[in-house]
Amino acid sequence: MQELRIQGDRLWASLMSMAAIGATAKGGCNRQALTDDDRLGRDRFSAWAREAGCTVTVDEIGNLFAARAGTDRHADPVLIGSHLDTQPTGGRFDGVYGVMAGLEVFRTLNDRRVATRRPIELVSWTNEEGCRFTPAMLGSGVVAGAYDLEYAYARQDRDGVRLDAELARIGYRGRSAARPRQFHAAFEAHIEQGPILEAESTTIGAVTGIQGAYWLDVILEGTAAHAGPTPMEMRRDPWRAATPIIEAAFALATRQAPWGRATVGDLRVSPGARNTVPERLVVSVDLRHPSAEALEAMVAAFKAQVSEIAARTGIAGRVQNVWHMPPTQFDPRLVDVVAECAAALGYSWRRMVSGAGHDSLHVARFAPTAMIFVPCKEGLSHNETESATPEDLAAGANVLLQAVLATAD
Amino acid sequence: MQELRIQGDRLWASLMSMAAIGATAKGGCNRQALTDDDRLGRDRFSAWAREAGCTVTVDEIGNLFAARAGTDRHADPVLIGSHLDTQPTGGRFDGVYGVMAGLEVFRTLNDRRVATRRPIELVSWTNEEGCRFTPAMLGSGVVAGAYDLEYAYARQDRDGVRLDAELARIGYRGRSAARPRQFHAAFEAHIEQGPILEAESTTIGAVTGIQGAYWLDVILEGTAAHAGPTPMEMRRDPWRAATPIIEAAFALATRQAPWGRATVGDLRVSPGARNTVPERLVVSVDLRHPSAEALEAMVAAFKAQVSEIAARTGIAGRVQNVWHMPPTQFDPRLVDVVAECAAALGYSWRRMVSGAGHDSLHVARFAPTAMIFVPCKEGLSHNETESATPEDLAAGANVLLQAVLATAD
Repeated sequence: MQELRIQGDRLWASLMSMAAIGATAKGGCNRQALTDDDRLGRDRFSAWAREAGCTVTVDEIGNLFAARAGTDRHADPVLIGSHLDTQPTGGRFDGVYGVMAGLEVFRTLNDRRVATRRPIELVSWTNEEGCRFTPAMLGSGVVAGAYDLEYAYARQDRDGVRLDAELARIGYRGRSAARPRQFHAAFEAHIEQGPILEAESTTIGAVTGIQGAYWLDVILEGTAAHAGPTPMEMRRDPWRAATPIIEAAFALATRQAPWGRATVGDLRVSPGARNTVPERLVVSVDLRHPSAEALEAMVAAFKAQVSEIAARTGIAGRVQNVWHMPPTQFDPRLVDVVAECAAALGYSWRRMVSGAGHDSLHVARFAPTAMIFVPCKEGLSHNETESATPEDLAAGANVLLQAVLATAD
Repeated sequence: MQELRIQGDRLWASLMSMAAIGATAKGGCNRQALTDDDRLGRDRFSAWAREAGCTVTVDEIGNLFAARAGTDRHADPVLIGSHLDTQPTGGRFDGVYGVMAGLEVFRTLNDRRVATRRPIELVSWTNEEGCRFTPAMLGSGVVAGAYDLEYAYARQDRDGVRLDAELARIGYRGRSAARPRQFHAAFEAHIEQGPILEAESTTIGAVTGIQGAYWLDVILEGTAAHAGPTPMEMRRDPWRAATPIIEAAFALATRQAPWGRATVGDLRVSPGARNTVPERLVVSVDLRHPSAEALEAMVAAFKAQVSEIAARTGIAGRVQNVWHMPPTQFDPRLVDVVAECAAALGYSWRRMVSGAGHDSLHVARFAPTAMIFVPCKEGLSHNETESATPEDLAAGANVLLQAVLATAD
C-alpha cells in the first residue's frame, strides 16, 4: 500500500462549494436533475476536473466522464464516481460525495505525481435521484442497456417538459455513445443513507450488494360525493380501503425485520377538494428486501391483501407495477479489495447490504463493481439535515484511493 | 291554494338552454364565476327576466335581481333564487335550478295574469361555488355583512386575477348597494346534492337548516428518510399517525349517525417522493353536524384523538382551524309553509337538514328563509353526471310557486 493520503480539508471544501449550488434555507440542497442549478454543478465539476488534468466528455444522456490518462492507454480503465443531482429537499452528501471523493483521488495522485498503468475515469451519472424525471438511476441505466435512449429522452417532469429538451437547454446533451465500455473495476463511494454504521460506530461499509425494490401504485376508486349531504354509510370512500392497505404494507415489512422495508412516499387524491369525498386515491408503495425470494413473497402477500381489503370495503382496487429493481450482488473480489484497504488503513469496517439503489446497480451489469459506505448522522438522507463528519468522509475517500491504486496498476 | 301549475317542459327547456353555456364533453357544466361563460349565462337570464316583465338590477358585487312588481309597492318583497355559477366539473342543476324555477314561477304568474300584493324578487347570487374565487357563497355573504365588499373585490383566482377586475370585465359590476334589504320571506329551491330523498322515494325536502362545518388541517411531522436503508423500527413516519387519525375521524362521524359527517378530501405529502419516508403530511378534514353543540363536541374529540395518537406514535401533530360555518336554523314558519304546500300538492315530503352550504345560509341572517329540496340521481353533485328528473324538478318548482303565493299575498 502506497503511503498516499487524501486531504480531508480539501475534500470538505469541494463538498461545501458544491453544496452552495442549490443550497436550501434549512442547510440542504435542491439541485434536481437538468435544472439550472444542475448545470452550474456540472460546470463547476467539469472545470475542476480539467484543472486536475482530465479530459471531460459528455455522452448522449448527459453522463459526464473525467478521464485521467494511464501509462498504458490500451488498458481497461478503472471507473469511480457517483452523481451530482439531488432530491428537492436533499442533503449535501448523497451522490456528490462519491464524485468529490473521486476528484480528491485525482488531486492526491497529481500532488505526488503518481501515474497508474490503467486510465481512471471519474463519472457523474445523469438523473440518479429520479425525483424530477422517473425512473431513478437513468443515466447509468441507459449505459447498462436497462433503458433505451429514446425512452430516456421522452421522460417528462410534472410540467410535461421532456428530458432531452432539458439536456439540450443546459448544454449537456453530449455526442459520445451512451453504451457500456470495458472497465477493469468500478468503485462508488457513498454515504450509507441508513443508521447502521453510526449505530455500531463503524467507519467503513464494504457493500456486498443492493436490496431489491418494487415500486407499486395502488389505485383505489370509489365514488366522488359532496362532503355535506352524503351520509357516512352511503359513501364509497376510497380512504376506507387506503388506511388498512397502508398499515398492511408496514406490517409486512416489519415481519421481515431487519431487512424488509415499506414506504408510502406519495399519495394522490382526486379530485382533491376539501369538501368532496375522493373518487380516486393513488398510493405509492415502495417495498424492499435484499433477497429476491423474500421480496417476491412480500409483493405477492401485499397484492393479496389489497384485493382482500378492496373487496371487503367495496372499493375498486388494483396494483400497478411501476418499477422493479432486482437485488444486486457486487463482485466478491472487489468487495474483498474494499475490506482489505479499510483494514490496512486501520478503519473499523463491516460487510453490509445497501438499502438504497445506486448507479452501481447498473454499472455491475457491465463491470466488476463494489461500493464503499461511510456513516451519516442518524442515518438520515433525502433530507436537508443529512450530515457526515469530515473524518468519516476522508476515511471513505482514502479507502477509495487505495482501492483504485490496488486495481489500476 | 290557487290552481296554478308551472310548465315542467318549459322549465326543463330553460335548464337545458342554460346548460349549453359551458357544457362539458361528459354532459356536465363548467360555468365558473365571472368567466366569459358566466357572462353569457347572466346575459341569457337577464334577457329572459326582462321578457317576463321584470326590472333587472345588479349590485356592487354582481348579484342579479329580477323584480316583479306587486300591487303594493311599499310591501316587503318575497325573495326567491339561487346561483348560476358552477364547479369546474359541475352539473346542470346545482344552483341554476333555483334560478330557472324562479323564472318559471314568474312566467306561470304571467300566463294567468296573477298579481301578488308583494313584489317578488328573483336573485342570482355571485360566486356561490367558491372554486374560482374563495370563499364560497361570496355574493350573498357580502349582502349579509359576513364579508366586506373590499375583501370580496380583492379575492384572486389561481392566476392572480382580482374579482373586481373580472366583475368589470364581464360587465356585471353594478351600482346598487350590496346591503341587506327588508324581505318578507325568502325561498331557495335546489337539488338535494345528497342521496336521502332518492333512497326514500320522497319528492320534496322541507329544509329546516344547514349543517355546521369545520374545515381542519391536521399537520403531522416526522423525519424524512431514504426508503431503502432505514429499518422500519428506526423510522419516524408520519403515516403511523395519519392512518389511525383518518379512521378516528370517520368513527366520530359514524357514531353521530345519521347526521355526522367526516371527509378527507385532500392529503398533501412532503416531499412527496416515492422513495422517501415523508417528513410531513397535511390531512384535510371536513367535519359536519346540524347541531352546533354536537359539532363542537366532534371537533373537540377529534383534536383530543389527534393529540393522543401523535403522542403514542412519536409524531408531532397539530390541528389548524381553516374555516368554520356554524349551523343555520331556517324560519320554522316558512319551513311549515314549504311542507304544507308539498302536502297540498300531493307530493311525498320530509323535513331534512342540508349537508351542503347554500346562499340561504347568509340570506337567513337578514330574512326569514327556507329551502326546497328535490332528489338528484344517486345523490351526486359537484359532478358532471349530476342528474334530476323533469318530474321532480317540476314538483319543486310547483312547491316554490305555492310557497310564493302563500307569502306574497
